[in-house]
Amino acid sequence: MNGPDLISVSIARQAQVDVVLERFFSLAKNRAAAFGEQYVQLWTTLESNTIGGKRFRPRMVMGAYQSLGGTDLEAAAYVGAAFELLHTALIVHDDVIDHDFVRRGVANISGSYRDAARKAGSSEKVAEHSGISAAVIAGDLALFNSYRLIDRSGVSDVVRSRLLEVMDDALFASAAGELIDVDFSITAEVPRVDDILTMERLKTAVYSFECPLQAGAILAGASEEVIQTLGDFGREIGIAYQLVDDLLGVFGKEAETGKTTMGDLREGKRTVMISYATSTAEWESIEPLIGKHDLTPEEAEAVRQVLIDCGARSFAEGLARYYANRALARLAEPHIPPALRIELHPVVDAVLGRVK
Amino acid sequence: MNGPDLISVSIARQAQVDVVLERFFSLAKNRAAAFGEQYVQLWTTLESNTIGGKRFRPRMVMGAYQSLGGTDLEAAAYVGAAFELLHTALIVHDDVIDHDFVRRGVANISGSYRDAARKAGSSEKVAEHSGISAAVIAGDLALFNSYRLIDRSGVSDVVRSRLLEVMDDALFASAAGELIDVDFSITAEVPRVDDILTMERLKTAVYSFECPLQAGAILAGASEEVIQTLGDFGREIGIAYQLVDDLLGVFGKEAETGKTTMGDLREGKRTVMISYATSTAEWESIEPLIGKHDLTPEEAEAVRQVLIDCGARSFAEGLARYYANRALARLAEPHIPPALRIELHPVVDAVLGRVK
Repeated sequence: MNGPDLISVSIARQAQVDVVLERFFSLAKNRAAAFGEQYVQLWTTLESNTIGGKRFRPRMVMGAYQSLGGTDLEAAAYVGAAFELLHTALIVHDDVIDHDFVRRGVANISGSYRDAARKAGSSEKVAEHSGISAAVIAGDLALFNSYRLIDRSGVSDVVRSRLLEVMDDALFASAAGELIDVDFSITAEVPRVDDILTMERLKTAVYSFECPLQAGAILAGASEEVIQTLGDFGREIGIAYQLVDDLLGVFGKEAETGKTTMGDLREGKRTVMISYATSTAEWESIEPLIGKHDLTPEEAEAVRQVLIDCGARSFAEGLARYYANRALARLAEPHIPPALRIELHPVVDAVLGRVK
Repeated sequence: MNGPDLISVSIARQAQVDVVLERFFSLAKNRAAAFGEQYVQLWTTLESNTIGGKRFRPRMVMGAYQSLGGTDLEAAAYVGAAFELLHTALIVHDDVIDHDFVRRGVANISGSYRDAARKAGSSEKVAEHSGISAAVIAGDLALFNSYRLIDRSGVSDVVRSRLLEVMDDALFASAAGELIDVDFSITAEVPRVDDILTMERLKTAVYSFECPLQAGAILAGASEEVIQTLGDFGREIGIAYQLVDDLLGVFGKEAETGKTTMGDLREGKRTVMISYATSTAEWESIEPLIGKHDLTPEEAEAVRQVLIDCGARSFAEGLARYYANRALARLAEPHIPPALRIELHPVVDAVLGRVK
């Protein structure tokens, strides 16, 4: 397929997923009405925190499914929507853990409820309590219903139970990664590069790449060999994606990423770049600036320069390319159908394109 | 059945549920080992926060199931265990919302992780963050796996899907109740008696009584009429239970309830008693004491006396008896099999017995 075709296919898939999610939320809101307006409001807020995303995980599910010959787009859309809802649940609770009220510049669930309570005249403490409480509850609803959507995809028992296992694997890994990440955030010393890669893979890559791709393959009735290879591909490209994401968190263009390039430095986020930098002589010159909550733009620029000079940036870029190439090698395996190769090659290009 | 028989049956049922939960946790811990010792520790902490409870909800499931002729005790134990795990998930996240680190005098998940971080020399802020993070993650795992246990009960598709709907109803109502409860906690004025009853029913009674009883009946293949009546019975007795629980939170004997009789008063918990008291002339004499964080035992005793004198205590007791009698009326309906009546009558007696 050439560019335009790819785009139109991707739009068609996203539309399918949006239909499923809109149906799901409209049913939930109708059901919530019996419990009062404020419960409808919670569901509306959860919906607005789910809709309008990049539909990244659904695209993995449907891309694998269709390029492996799957034709029941509605079932695939349900499974894709389930992963989208799982994603919402995980980021909503991740924000609770990080005490974040804003995501990508927009108020998240905690943020909307905190701001509403503020407007209503609550103290800051009460407003934050209201926000965090709403986010805990909304995340629980999203998590539970991600499972429900798999259940409602209308697939056979055997497939359903395989899909639920994959969903289970996704949450199991993500919880483990979140736990490691919390430890990182409260431990003074910077972890080793490989520990950071493991954490990022578990926390995000497994449920964003490995499991959605495998779910699409299972749904399409692919061979165990293909399912396995897709999981391996997802692992490699998922790690590459995280490496690139961390690079953009410091060196990205906010206009493109919608993500500030000060946040990661100010919170002292443990990334491969930072971990690499600690092993260099330049580290002591920036150590006091990493995690400095009031880091100035000038200081941030100085840190960026040091991360370039000490080789941390190029190391992380090189590692991202290494994992991306490992991903490509998986796609090259003989049992991978050409259509699947054509489908997933652009995913690798897109990941690498972000650092170019 | 006479007393001793009831006890032995109840012990046998609890043993069945414990077997399911032990198997579930031992599988999870083995699986977690691949992700590191700290993940095994999280599962161990979640397990210790799940086992050893009163197994109240499993008893509702299995009581309804067996007295309606069900014989597959293992399937019933899986469904009972699913509700027990749902209960754990809800109280763990409820404690996150309330910023509680202790439950019934024992450190909960947040508490154990906070205390461990303290011992490791973390600041109080970091220690609390570690505790709350662990509780958010553990609650997510418990919630997701409550669903999984229904799935693993080995029942037919039709029954499984009915059971999942009941589980869905349980979480849907509980989330609505939790949301209302949060609003109560941040609103200055004391809610009306009926609003408090609605909140308590949604937050706790639905998932503790209505849904477990209905799940047991569905599993036993009972008629829609019986399933419906059991839900109604569960609603009435569940509300009675909450009323009694609030009475014990102020007038109980800590030795019996394992619950301090100062906590509810100090946090200014909105209960039927307090709501009733606000409508009396005596209210202004205790208003400054309700929600007083450093309430003294003498002041608490004074509040208790006023709650007695203004009729709030006897009103709440009377309301509890009223709902308990409504529950008994449900049991008396002709389509309720005698065995089910014999099974559930002691539940009503136990609820009322707590205020006698």
